[in-house]
Amino acid sequence: MPRTAHIVTLGHAIVDVLAPSPDELVRRFGLQRGTMTLIDDSRAADIYAALGPATEVSGGSAANTAAVVASFGGSVEFIGKIRDDVLGEVFAHDIRAAGVAFEVPPSREGPGTGRSLIMVSPDGEKTMSTSLGIGAYLLPEDIDVDVITGAKIVYIEGYLYGLRDTDAAVERTIEVAKSAGTQVALSLADPAWVELHRDQFDTILDNVDLLFANELEACEMAGVTAGNVDEALDALSKRCPTVAVTLGAKGSVVARDGDVVTASALPVDRVVDTTGAGDSYAGGFLFAYLAGFEARRCAEFGALAASEIVSHLGARPQQSLLELARRSRLL
Amino acid sequence: MPRTAHIVTLGHAIVDVLAPSPDELVRRFGLQRGTMTLIDDSRAADIYAALGPATEVSGGSAANTAAVVASFGGSVEFIGKIRDDVLGEVFAHDIRAAGVAFEVPPSREGPGTGRSLIMVSPDGEKTMSTSLGIGAYLLPEDIDVDVITGAKIVYIEGYLYGLRDTDAAVERTIEVAKSAGTQVALSLADPAWVELHRDQFDTILDNVDLLFANELEACEMAGVTAGNVDEALDALSKRCPTVAVTLGAKGSVVARDGDVVTASALPVDRVVDTTGAGDSYAGGFLFAYLAGFEARRCAEFGALAASEIVSHLGARPQQSLLELARRSRLL
Repeated sequence: MPRTAHIVTLGHAIVDVLAPSPDELVRRFGLQRGTMTLIDDSRAADIYAALGPATEVSGGSAANTAAVVASFGGSVEFIGKIRDDVLGEVFAHDIRAAGVAFEVPPSREGPGTGRSLIMVSPDGEKTMSTSLGIGAYLLPEDIDVDVITGAKIVYIEGYLYGLRDTDAAVERTIEVAKSAGTQVALSLADPAWVELHRDQFDTILDNVDLLFANELEACEMAGVTAGNVDEALDALSKRCPTVAVTLGAKGSVVARDGDVVTASALPVDRVVDTTGAGDSYAGGFLFAYLAGFEARRCAEFGALAASEIVSHLGARPQQSLLELARRSRLL
Repeated sequence: MPRTAHIVTLGHAIVDVLAPSPDELVRRFGLQRGTMTLIDDSRAADIYAALGPATEVSGGSAANTAAVVASFGGSVEFIGKIRDDVLGEVFAHDIRAAGVAFEVPPSREGPGTGRSLIMVSPDGEKTMSTSLGIGAYLLPEDIDVDVITGAKIVYIEGYLYGLRDTDAAVERTIEVAKSAGTQVALSLADPAWVELHRDQFDTILDNVDLLFANELEACEMAGVTAGNVDEALDALSKRCPTVAVTLGAKGSVVARDGDVVTASALPVDRVVDTTGAGDSYAGGFLFAYLAGFEARRCAEFGALAASEIVSHLGARPQQSLLELARRSRLL
């Protein structure tokens, strides 16, 4: 019997190492608040040594998105690569315990499971320094064709595109999805990442049915000056039927088949950690999108998920989003 | 130059795997709420598979106590055994980042670093299933004589006593401490543990200057019916100059050189996770004891530390206890 998750997400399998940190520490390492930097083992050791006591929780952008879909009760599978080490075991446990199917066997050789050292600023902003480890070696043969063919949507984390080995896996996934009629969703990951790989993203953009970006990423991708979201949305929506742009505390704006709608962010008592805010917005949006809701309602599901995620340390839901949606009268 | 931490704590180096869990899960595995059970790898795999998404944070009873002493600004070193694996790296990072000296080199062979699977019940009670791993092999030669000799107090976690290999390390530590005039503190760890190893604890009790126990442990150790705390305190204080017994939400009672004083627990908005409550009480108490405060004030420092620890997931302080003590007018 073939597996038939409705939503499949593809990304790096990462364990997050979260440490509340003063902004001074972000500056000391020459990092940029709110962005992700790829680091090697030696730099990871330096940064880790400077971090305060930390908490380890499973993360990874598309994996967080999958956990959110599952928390709403959606049918979802994650594809990403782990080693047969302790962090890999932690990652596999947590994603399955969250209700997400995960069938990629742990690799028995190569670098260890990826981890991200995350400085959480007093205002909740996160700054990530990531060692992708084995995650950088997700290959086309790791993509189960039946899983992509059987899904209604495949969601690809932007961090996978722009690395030699994973590029081929992304392109293979899109090729399989297109021929099977599976919709393709893409998240742009990070403004600095888009800046680095803009031309490459440009080559796949016309295959994307559903694009997720924050304000900076959307402007960067569209090649417009930062701040001109309307202009960026206009340009991007000419290429992707649905474009959802998150605006932080200002909510989000969605262009779908020519219409543009906005949705507010939900009030949060105290923002503890913004890690996973965008990932969880995408998860809520995807769940509602697949359920057939209109664009505004999709954005509201995204906002609901994000409000839960930023209220605690870590990027995975700590309560049932299905129940939260019911209490919030979204369902 | 010799190292000169004032307080040295000795115990198992453990990484906690915390998962909010219904009490039904505790029952399903035949565990007893609020106690610690030693498990082997196969049982660990079964329990882990049944746990929901988890959070990893450094733990270990005496290591938690050391982190609390450091958070008050105290001078403290921890002795315990890790492997050169990822969990060992996490443990070493976190204890040092908390301000605790930790100089035991990671073992390059033997079982992995210890971990404890902790079911956190809705009311915050914790039920622990622990794989000690390499921790069970703390040997007399791992005890740095200069460190014990240079300290004012050495605090021993009860879980170390009752295992063939670590028994010798405990006895060696007491022998060195006694000949150097270093005071010996002991925590009784867990009621079930005391029940199993009562006769053995009895052989070292007369060497203990400062004894920590909860209500059940004190009664078990004294050989009196559960509930008769006064009687237990009377019996134990004939053998140990200072005996501190924690009573959960009812606070604590301390017998010191013939006097008995009580202290209230501090109000906590919501008890999230009681893991480390006793460990942190001991840490606050030790810090104040060494500073020369009277018994009641020592108990108040213990209560303050415990109130911080039970208010969040994990057994290590998430804010400066020194600042908290100042705000609470304890300092």
